[in-house]
Amino acid sequence: MNIVEIKQTLIGKPFPTSREIHERLDKIRALAIFASDPISSNAYATEAIMSVLIVLGSGALPMTLPLATAVAILVLMVVFSYIQTILHYPDGGGAYTVAKDNLGKYPSLLAGAALLTDYVLTVSVSISAGVRAVTSAVPQLFEYRVIIALLAIGFITWINLRGVRESGTIFALPTYAFVGGVMLTIIIGLMRYLGWLGAAPLPVFDEAVPATTSLAGFAYVWLLLRAFAGGCTALTGIEAISNGVKAFQPPEAKNAAKTMVVMGIMAMSLFMGITFLSTHMHLTPIEHGESILSQMTRQISGRSILYFWVQTFTALILFLAANTGYQDFPRLSSFLAKDGFMPRWMQNRGDRLVYSSGILVLAAVASLIVIIFQANEIAMLPLYALGVMLSFTLSQIGMSRLMRKISHLKPGETVNTSVTTIHYERGWRWKKTVNIAGAIITGLVFIILMATKFIDGAWIIALAIPALVFTFAKINTHYQVVAQTLSTRDFSEEHLVDVANVVIIPIADVHQGTLRAIQYARRIATDVRAVCIATSPEVRERIERRWARFPRLTEGIDLVIIDYDYRDILTPLVDYIKTVNEKEFPGWLITVVIPEFIPVERYAQILHNQTANILRRRLRSTEEVIIIDVPYHIPSSD
Amino acid sequence: MNIVEIKQTLIGKPFPTSREIHERLDKIRALAIFASDPISSNAYATEAIMSVLIVLGSGALPMTLPLATAVAILVLMVVFSYIQTILHYPDGGGAYTVAKDNLGKYPSLLAGAALLTDYVLTVSVSISAGVRAVTSAVPQLFEYRVIIALLAIGFITWINLRGVRESGTIFALPTYAFVGGVMLTIIIGLMRYLGWLGAAPLPVFDEAVPATTSLAGFAYVWLLLRAFAGGCTALTGIEAISNGVKAFQPPEAKNAAKTMVVMGIMAMSLFMGITFLSTHMHLTPIEHGESILSQMTRQISGRSILYFWVQTFTALILFLAANTGYQDFPRLSSFLAKDGFMPRWMQNRGDRLVYSSGILVLAAVASLIVIIFQANEIAMLPLYALGVMLSFTLSQIGMSRLMRKISHLKPGETVNTSVTTIHYERGWRWKKTVNIAGAIITGLVFIILMATKFIDGAWIIALAIPALVFTFAKINTHYQVVAQTLSTRDFSEEHLVDVANVVIIPIADVHQGTLRAIQYARRIATDVRAVCIATSPEVRERIERRWARFPRLTEGIDLVIIDYDYRDILTPLVDYIKTVNEKEFPGWLITVVIPEFIPVERYAQILHNQTANILRRRLRSTEEVIIIDVPYHIPSSD
Repeated sequence: MNIVEIKQTLIGKPFPTSREIHERLDKIRALAIFASDPISSNAYATEAIMSVLIVLGSGALPMTLPLATAVAILVLMVVFSYIQTILHYPDGGGAYTVAKDNLGKYPSLLAGAALLTDYVLTVSVSISAGVRAVTSAVPQLFEYRVIIALLAIGFITWINLRGVRESGTIFALPTYAFVGGVMLTIIIGLMRYLGWLGAAPLPVFDEAVPATTSLAGFAYVWLLLRAFAGGCTALTGIEAISNGVKAFQPPEAKNAAKTMVVMGIMAMSLFMGITFLSTHMHLTPIEHGESILSQMTRQISGRSILYFWVQTFTALILFLAANTGYQDFPRLSSFLAKDGFMPRWMQNRGDRLVYSSGILVLAAVASLIVIIFQANEIAMLPLYALGVMLSFTLSQIGMSRLMRKISHLKPGETVNTSVTTIHYERGWRWKKTVNIAGAIITGLVFIILMATKFIDGAWIIALAIPALVFTFAKINTHYQVVAQTLSTRDFSEEHLVDVANVVIIPIADVHQGTLRAIQYARRIATDVRAVCIATSPEVRERIERRWARFPRLTEGIDLVIIDYDYRDILTPLVDYIKTVNEKEFPGWLITVVIPEFIPVERYAQILHNQTANILRRRLRSTEEVIIIDVPYHIPSSD
Repeated sequence: MNIVEIKQTLIGKPFPTSREIHERLDKIRALAIFASDPISSNAYATEAIMSVLIVLGSGALPMTLPLATAVAILVLMVVFSYIQTILHYPDGGGAYTVAKDNLGKYPSLLAGAALLTDYVLTVSVSISAGVRAVTSAVPQLFEYRVIIALLAIGFITWINLRGVRESGTIFALPTYAFVGGVMLTIIIGLMRYLGWLGAAPLPVFDEAVPATTSLAGFAYVWLLLRAFAGGCTALTGIEAISNGVKAFQPPEAKNAAKTMVVMGIMAMSLFMGITFLSTHMHLTPIEHGESILSQMTRQISGRSILYFWVQTFTALILFLAANTGYQDFPRLSSFLAKDGFMPRWMQNRGDRLVYSSGILVLAAVASLIVIIFQANEIAMLPLYALGVMLSFTLSQIGMSRLMRKISHLKPGETVNTSVTTIHYERGWRWKKTVNIAGAIITGLVFIILMATKFIDGAWIIALAIPALVFTFAKINTHYQVVAQTLSTRDFSEEHLVDVANVVIIPIADVHQGTLRAIQYARRIATDVRAVCIATSPEVRERIERRWARFPRLTEGIDLVIIDYDYRDILTPLVDYIKTVNEKEFPGWLITVVIPEFIPVERYAQILHNQTANILRRRLRSTEEVIIIDVPYHIPSSD
């Protein structure tokens, strides 16, 4: 089985490019693929608010509901804004494209860098959280958590390499199972709360202690802001669809927008339902203990099948939230690569029409983070959600700019921006207001997150994002230089450099390999010189003797033997080649023919001197030398 | 500073080959370099016997002296045997050469493999023991022991890469300081024992408890054998000089033999002195406690300068014993490489006339072992000394065979064996007897070591040595195939394959790089074909349009555009090339010219498709394709 067959067995037969349209996602699959991250936030978002408020004592916990409502309103604003983005930028690209079109190069790179860091963290955090769910159940596995996390990354990578439709099918079940289970729990809970189930009223704990610390003024506001910021983890992943518009079946933008609406409603129903019930049930967050969602489900449904259903699919959806990163990272990378800010090969689609390089890069970086943080997602959390907030802010500012442009248009007028087409539309004023409000709030959340978590790890992101922006800019400069250098705009055929009629063949001995090289050299030039570095008189004598045995082939060929009292034969060889180039043929291309053994068994290569390879590397920097490998195959020794 | 300058700063300017004779060692340096391992054994050899005997109670400890005497006699026999080896094999090679000349291929490979494993362990064990001495003094360093050990290996590697004379100078001081210090201690001890120092008789402890376990018969003999085997650690490193004859100044063999004698006398004086005093002082080995040598020195000299001198240089010589491995491993590897059993490049001397590749391979393998065993030399000890005993046995059997050959000669008669010249000599009978006795005893010690330490780790050696022998044989087969394939013995110029007048140029676009490649191709052939894989109609259209812009250059050149509905463009390209080769020019050499970008900044390479590299790799297996890289340099983007 050769490498091509292995690859095909693993990821399936290649799809032709024309099949791309068939690989698009219907709305059911798309929702499962893009929504696993935002929906999975419900496993912890309510608790994230509560665990800040608990500092004030359990009497402060009822504040959770208004804060969660504020978060939900923010989410709806963001969803609204992204629906606008989708409709105005139907080719996809989200915050990066919006910023590029409305704010310029560096803001767009900032948005791109922020999102990429966050996508990588989505994978690392989600996988680690999933592994924690597994090791909580089976503590013996705790010491293998890093390996388990890496295997999980490997699995998700593999599924994604097989193609987006296929991964959509596989990931649909856990997402819908989680939504269904939690939804059912909330409905039963509400019915019991309203007394519709008569006999069994909700258990209410009245142990609530009044706030022991009576914080006032700034400290109190700061704490509320932090609780609010904690709840904003519910926002992560919401922008996914705006990047992936092109993954939808046509009409892409419409389908994407519809899916976005359904996702927003679904995620916020769960969030508000969980928050309402858990505050009215007077649940208290327990550090390192049972989660709020678990407490709620257990008290509502008892230790029923429903409880285990919700628990199981909570663990699974936390794992699968990683998949959102696999949708977003490769796609956004491909946008950046297309614009020349990331390596060009990241825009190539693989055999199964997914951005394979991006998927593999994501898997590698996420694995590295898992290893560095030892699969401890608690340690990663301070780094998380920062990027997404920054990109929200930039995206909303960008959209408000776009709305301003639109405000200048008259009915029926159409204008092309750098990446899209806009025309007059009604309601730009309130759309713009929503965008500005959204920008201010998400910007504020970004500042709060950065300030409160800076020393815990957010500083890494504060360094990483500018470093990425710098790298993008460097890469772009390189591609510009390449384009300029290769450009044929002002190029005419007279500018071509001349090729000298000379070939140099370094030889160490006269054997069938060198004879073949000499024969090849004769074929392409008349001035052929075989160069041998003689490290001892015996070497000189042996070469001369063997050379004489092939008079017909060697006739007219210079045999240059250079005596040399050191072992590093490459130095005089390179010197000779450079001298010929500089003294005899300055400005011309000269040719070096290197005889090279190629053993059939690849590993046998290490048994041979790497002279040919090293010579090639040393001559790379010399612009005017063309290197020809004349291979001589060594059969298997079995 | 480029790489050549960095290298020269680190290891010094290259020596010319003719300087080799000046790099040879005088006897003072040679003794220091080769003897650090056997002499350092005195730090633990006596204790190794005692710690077995103590099982029988401290009453059994006086048995140490007769056992040590037996070890000393064995050492002298081995020294005698190796002096014979040196005189009969003045080109060096020790057990490997002796076995090769007298016992055949596989016994010699066995000896070679056994010695190589032991040399690697010499380094790992010595360094780890030295690190233990350091961490005993400064326990805070314990958690950094692996790093310290690796740094120490790095240091010794560096010194050895600088050249053998230089390392001889650096390593002479600790060796002679250790010998001097211990010798002085022994002399003072003996004088006090004999009462010559009058006032201060030796402290004698009479707490000796009679043997509690009265073992009898086989068990008792087995215990004595194990104690004897323990003492045989004193033999490690003794063969070093026989390998390194060529490192001596001329007359090499004579100087080497003299050094061997001095080394044997020195090592055995220390060994017998330490054993005599420590048994007569009734010292008792303390597990994980103060060593016998330290106890003895302390009681004889008090906590004087002498005591600290001996302690300091004990630690240092344990470190430096590693250096013996650095002398032996690269040299023996070079012998094996010369005979085609190890990679040929291991016989090359580096800039400073040492076997640099061998030194680096040794450093790498020893570091790996240190990492695996976490610098715990106690865990490594069961693997140690096995190889050396096996090689002693083989060497002695070989020498006894040689003596038999000599016994058939008449006075004045001279015969060439495969590697040396022998002639009649007197005394062959008793020399042969010594050899046979030596072979039996060292063979026995090997069996005892293997049997008693098998489950503790000796099994690793029992697997490693045959695996090495197998590898040597495989490598040799490969080189034989290479030699046969390249041989010009039955080769005449008619056998050369023909070169077809055709060049294929894969192109992705028409730019200055491809234009240069086309121009080069025109220069070397008239049938030139530019092949483009068009993955979309736009690609086809763009290529055709740009192609038309250079009518003079492209005139007469076929532009082959292949439409392809997948992204993996290499497959149709390779198919096209193979078809041309097989259908149009079967049995001829055809040429592929690949335009390649070479960015000045090396790291920028990853920004480009690796198409050229991958294509080269895919075509490697095709025997009849010659690949020409036409480089196009991309300037720096700074």
